[in-house]
Amino acid sequence: MQPLILLLHLLIFVSISHAWFYGRDAPDRWSVGGVWPLPHKIVYGSKNKTLYHDKIGIDLGGKKNCDVLLNMADNYMNKWMFPFPVEVPTGGSDDYIITVSVKEDCPTGPPIHGSSEEYFLRVSVGEAVITAQTVWGALRGMETFSQLVFYDEKSKEYKVRTAEIVDRPRFPVRGIMIDTSRHFLSVKVIKRQLDIMAMNKLNVLHWHLVDSESFPYTSARFPELHTVGAYSPRHVYSRKDVADIINYARLHGIRVIPEFDLPGHTSAWRGKKGFLTECFDEHGELTNLPNLIDPMNENNFAFIAEFLEEVTQTFSDPFLHLGGDEVSDYIVECWERNQKIQKFMREKGMGNNTVLLENYFFEKLFKIVKELKIKRKPIFWQELFDNNNPDPNSIIHIWKGNSHEEIYEYIHNVTAQNLPVIVSSCWYLNYIKYGADWRDEIGGTAKSNSRYYYCDPTNFNGTDAQKQLVLGGIAAIWGELVDNTNIEARLWPRASAVAERLWSPAEKTQRAEDAWPRMHELRCRLVSRGYRIQPNNNPDYCPFEFDEDLKNVRNEF
Amino acid sequence: MQPLILLLHLLIFVSISHAWFYGRDAPDRWSVGGVWPLPHKIVYGSKNKTLYHDKIGIDLGGKKNCDVLLNMADNYMNKWMFPFPVEVPTGGSDDYIITVSVKEDCPTGPPIHGSSEEYFLRVSVGEAVITAQTVWGALRGMETFSQLVFYDEKSKEYKVRTAEIVDRPRFPVRGIMIDTSRHFLSVKVIKRQLDIMAMNKLNVLHWHLVDSESFPYTSARFPELHTVGAYSPRHVYSRKDVADIINYARLHGIRVIPEFDLPGHTSAWRGKKGFLTECFDEHGELTNLPNLIDPMNENNFAFIAEFLEEVTQTFSDPFLHLGGDEVSDYIVECWERNQKIQKFMREKGMGNNTVLLENYFFEKLFKIVKELKIKRKPIFWQELFDNNNPDPNSIIHIWKGNSHEEIYEYIHNVTAQNLPVIVSSCWYLNYIKYGADWRDEIGGTAKSNSRYYYCDPTNFNGTDAQKQLVLGGIAAIWGELVDNTNIEARLWPRASAVAERLWSPAEKTQRAEDAWPRMHELRCRLVSRGYRIQPNNNPDYCPFEFDEDLKNVRNEF
Repeated sequence: MQPLILLLHLLIFVSISHAWFYGRDAPDRWSVGGVWPLPHKIVYGSKNKTLYHDKIGIDLGGKKNCDVLLNMADNYMNKWMFPFPVEVPTGGSDDYIITVSVKEDCPTGPPIHGSSEEYFLRVSVGEAVITAQTVWGALRGMETFSQLVFYDEKSKEYKVRTAEIVDRPRFPVRGIMIDTSRHFLSVKVIKRQLDIMAMNKLNVLHWHLVDSESFPYTSARFPELHTVGAYSPRHVYSRKDVADIINYARLHGIRVIPEFDLPGHTSAWRGKKGFLTECFDEHGELTNLPNLIDPMNENNFAFIAEFLEEVTQTFSDPFLHLGGDEVSDYIVECWERNQKIQKFMREKGMGNNTVLLENYFFEKLFKIVKELKIKRKPIFWQELFDNNNPDPNSIIHIWKGNSHEEIYEYIHNVTAQNLPVIVSSCWYLNYIKYGADWRDEIGGTAKSNSRYYYCDPTNFNGTDAQKQLVLGGIAAIWGELVDNTNIEARLWPRASAVAERLWSPAEKTQRAEDAWPRMHELRCRLVSRGYRIQPNNNPDYCPFEFDEDLKNVRNEF
Repeated sequence: MQPLILLLHLLIFVSISHAWFYGRDAPDRWSVGGVWPLPHKIVYGSKNKTLYHDKIGIDLGGKKNCDVLLNMADNYMNKWMFPFPVEVPTGGSDDYIITVSVKEDCPTGPPIHGSSEEYFLRVSVGEAVITAQTVWGALRGMETFSQLVFYDEKSKEYKVRTAEIVDRPRFPVRGIMIDTSRHFLSVKVIKRQLDIMAMNKLNVLHWHLVDSESFPYTSARFPELHTVGAYSPRHVYSRKDVADIINYARLHGIRVIPEFDLPGHTSAWRGKKGFLTECFDEHGELTNLPNLIDPMNENNFAFIAEFLEEVTQTFSDPFLHLGGDEVSDYIVECWERNQKIQKFMREKGMGNNTVLLENYFFEKLFKIVKELKIKRKPIFWQELFDNNNPDPNSIIHIWKGNSHEEIYEYIHNVTAQNLPVIVSSCWYLNYIKYGADWRDEIGGTAKSNSRYYYCDPTNFNGTDAQKQLVLGGIAAIWGELVDNTNIEARLWPRASAVAERLWSPAEKTQRAEDAWPRMHELRCRLVSRGYRIQPNNNPDYCPFEFDEDLKNVRNEF
């Protein structure tokens, strides 16, 4: 077969482009069979191949019993590959087989840090072949194949673009952080976000389970935490729910990293007697809002150790997020105005330096982590680096910074100390704004979230070794104003911009203007699959607009 | 029966309130059986009455064949009155009848301007009685009854609070403006917004059907308008769709006021040959984006007349919105740089004063409106008042202003000229911001949308006669960034704040802090009814969170 040598920019639907309203291209200049996030290398062929639903098959080779691949085949064949609510053509003369060839054995656990996601995909008119080291790579390749499929309005047929693709992620950590404490999110809604994450080749769900407001996580050993701390008995993830989400994520090639934020943001842990200090307002009155751990109580460390042992049995990911942010917000109320704490500090020779008390707490926490029976690499928010002395085994999670430059400076400083970094500051998607904020400056700060397509976590002056320490990024959608009703539309496709930044080669994804026709096709494809992917580029339309009851249409296939 | 003399503030769940995070009350201090928008007068009784689904009935008296009331009874009995996804208790010993007594005949048409919406509602343990002049008042009363119903978690029963209510709206025009040109909205999604509008006692759908970007409206007489101007053949409201929406709105006591924006914002009318001027960029090149009518072409006026005759046959509302905004945005390109227009202006003695050409157009438009076979009262955006000479029969629609004070000044100026006013400037809900923008100042301008609970359209220095000219307000959700995926959660409950401002007595609704427990109950009630009402007061929860498949649960009733 001849090498396929069409240039990348032909990806964009060829047409005489002309200006339209809102200073942009006409709204129907979207790509056809464009891939998001952009692959490492993609060369399109000149031909398209018509696909007939009753003549297409996925051949899993020797992996016919692998649940990850069986689930993949079911999703793509029955839901995602022919998403548009039209009749799927049948009856073509020849079968079309997608051969999936995976080198490694079918894994029983989720992907771990550094698991290969590389794949090779060759789509010709005769067949398609996905080759990958791991099932995770196969998942990524299958999504890419499905994105080469498009509905041809003229012939009323599904077609696939021929192409040769070599693809692998730029960063190993590409995630979404959800916050189930400020508002509860149902298992169903979380699973929908996992679906969309997989379609964007994201691989980490950072689950900020618990915060000041509520404790929806169920500990089997310490049920008083959720019975007291959850909003209500309906606002709880049962042990089964958690296992269900972890397994669902696994089937989509997504790791689940839980966060238990310590020692601040802990008001909802009040079910554990003695866990929190008393806190006082400026008049010396109890605030009723204790939000900081009592480090004097030795039982608390035994409790944390026991709690975390259970967490390691529940969540298999080798990373464990332990928070550590914004302790200083509560220090005055809960430690400085607390006479018992003050006495304890004096006895321990800390004087009135509360940072020493923070360090005291964290040193004990590091020891607990080190002594876990099942080993974990801890992640901490950047305050551990800024104010304290992180254990050298830690990963630092950057969340501050008012400009991209300031954020890059933070990344530089942490990596200069040889600590690995995950970046979220550029991508606080909870901070909504009016406009195309994924690409445009809309006022406010970088952290308050605009131009996130343009934040590149290795864009700092540093050595190659430093840049190797940048593990990736996590887009955060904090839960103050987000629940089941609005998380999906608010998150997507804004998080898709982050997904491309973290997966694709930087040099090929420099301009949002070049990206939007592919992003628009992505939006419409996902809308057709039944997900609420909102408009983010001013007026436009999709060939088929979102329909609540699309799933009913689909189920008729 | 003794008069019920419990004070209004008992409406709020009585409990020792205590501070919580985000500087507010604890998230479960919501009202129980609170009514939104707050009625003119409400006095709660001391007792609650348990309701059993199989023992409750609605007696329509002599109106048993009235479609509005039959639809109402069906909605409330089968969907909205017992919304929570729990088993409805059955088997109580005594029947509970809601008697609906309407004085006027069942209307065949929609409500018109000034139709009475007043109702009296008495809910006792033995029965409930709704008395109203019109079916529209009965609809409002029935919604209020349904809001007195709550699910009692302790007894696991539905109960209704006893109360006596006298209620009527403060303003006759209380609306939502949707924009189906920038993004298409499906009939289903529009109907869902009409449902929620009715639950907020809103009574006007201002349908901005057509704009520069697309022409989804179907004219039977001029099909070239939509065949050329719609985004695609799927992005069209058929004649049947329009009639369906109008009738659906009618069944919910909602008028539909269509807008056909002239003479600017007209690019999508290009299907009508000769309708638009040629427009030129600064180099004298054609822009390909004509967005202004050609007033030289006399045929255009004949066309507009014929088009609007059909509109009056399609939309029965006595008001007709004809736009008139932002003409100046296109004047340089389309009139000043256009040599033919310049020549025409000189011939007509207008020199180079394009305002005279605007006036020329509008005078002809006023004449067309006057000569319509079915009479219509025209509404124009405020530029007609600011720049031109509105016909004295016009209503002026205020949409500008950077502060509440500036908006009040506009209202003052227009009413001082004895012209009626509708206000939208305070409520541009498309301008999203991070935070509780319905009540808090979040930067930007008033028009860019914060503190909209606090905008009161009669808060200007003026005579009583002037204040009588304030017809009400319309919350606008322009379509640049809104489609089927996100309109519902983005609109509600932010628009509910507007609904209360426009319905309820000003003196009883002065403080958002007092309103939020009722607003929170409203949100949760509507979430339980299956609508995407997003959080808007920082962390909180509902007894039952939004569930996509709630309608399935409901259908099992």
